[in-house]
Amino acid sequence: MGKGLFITFEGIDGCGKSTQIELLRTFLDSKGIDNLVIREPGGTVVGEKIREILLDKKNSDMTSLAELLLFEAARAQIVEEKIKPAIDEGKVVICDRFYDSSLAYQGVARNMGTDLVNLLNNVAVSGLDPDMTFFLDISVEESLRRRNKRGDESDRIEGMGDSFLEKVRQGYLYAALYDSDRIKTIDASSSVEDIASQIANSVSERL
Amino acid sequence: MGKGLFITFEGIDGCGKSTQIELLRTFLDSKGIDNLVIREPGGTVVGEKIREILLDKKNSDMTSLAELLLFEAARAQIVEEKIKPAIDEGKVVICDRFYDSSLAYQGVARNMGTDLVNLLNNVAVSGLDPDMTFFLDISVEESLRRRNKRGDESDRIEGMGDSFLEKVRQGYLYAALYDSDRIKTIDASSSVEDIASQIANSVSERL
Repeated sequence: MGKGLFITFEGIDGCGKSTQIELLRTFLDSKGIDNLVIREPGGTVVGEKIREILLDKKNSDMTSLAELLLFEAARAQIVEEKIKPAIDEGKVVICDRFYDSSLAYQGVARNMGTDLVNLLNNVAVSGLDPDMTFFLDISVEESLRRRNKRGDESDRIEGMGDSFLEKVRQGYLYAALYDSDRIKTIDASSSVEDIASQIANSVSERL
Repeated sequence: MGKGLFITFEGIDGCGKSTQIELLRTFLDSKGIDNLVIREPGGTVVGEKIREILLDKKNSDMTSLAELLLFEAARAQIVEEKIKPAIDEGKVVICDRFYDSSLAYQGVARNMGTDLVNLLNNVAVSGLDPDMTFFLDISVEESLRRRNKRGDESDRIEGMGDSFLEKVRQGYLYAALYDSDRIKTIDASSSVEDIASQIANSVSERL
């Protein structure tokens, strides 16, 4: 089989990651391409337990540094236990969020600094960087509209409010500027079909 | 009040940390010295949840790196939420395990390397190093004898076996050699009273 492909999806809540990941999976299945869809934090037994701690609104005392280290712990686990083995088997691995989330949420929005987050990201992934990242960019207003429409109950991090989300978005834009070869910024206010076809085309080129 | 004092206790299971911490607390109380006794991992709501993940034998798939990052997350939380505020109030803080445990267990016994562990330790504590550390040194045979006598059920990390514990002990001896000003190695095969009086004397000198 040879080496697989590692694709990550990024963006603020309501940007359409889940929908697009499902459409990409369907596209890959239709081509008979073996794939693994996974989410972060979580995706492993240990990681899902870490996810519970991270998203539980009762943990309002959590410091930003503890939060960052918990994300990195879940990341280290999913990389070693799931992503690396699947890529070694030649699969296309699609991960819902990865280390750019830490850069945007913890590094920029929580002001932990991009140097510290890059350092810890590198420790956690032990050399496994995504081959392609799709950043689905929407405005915070649009995010709010979609989340209200879905009637989502917000978790500890989603509940941080709109000015926080605006900083997260700026963090993603910064990451995309800094690493424009890997990160493809997609205008996620376009139609679902348009976005899906942009993504399928990009992925096809790399396969 | 001025700045307090930060004391940590280290050693393999069965070395007598709990007993000596309790005796030091009693000694400080008898002198009317305000103190806080705390344990790691844990000591905070978030930290105790992390502790559960770390010690649960069901999590046998946990990678060494995820384990290390979870310890650092719990450490970051306890430092910021409990230890720093108590020291700022002038208290003597006694912590059952701290970053030397990561050096000995993850850095040496799990072969993660002391450079990586020192790096992450420094990130997690944000400049808060212990003023004094008591390393209660016993042989692995003595540790086993005491644990059997107590009828302890071992957790995920204690269940790693005796050759693992021997490496942990070597890790502590390495740390004590490297940082001999801070870490006082105590022969923990001595009598409880002897050890308690050595510790009380050392602490009294620093107060």
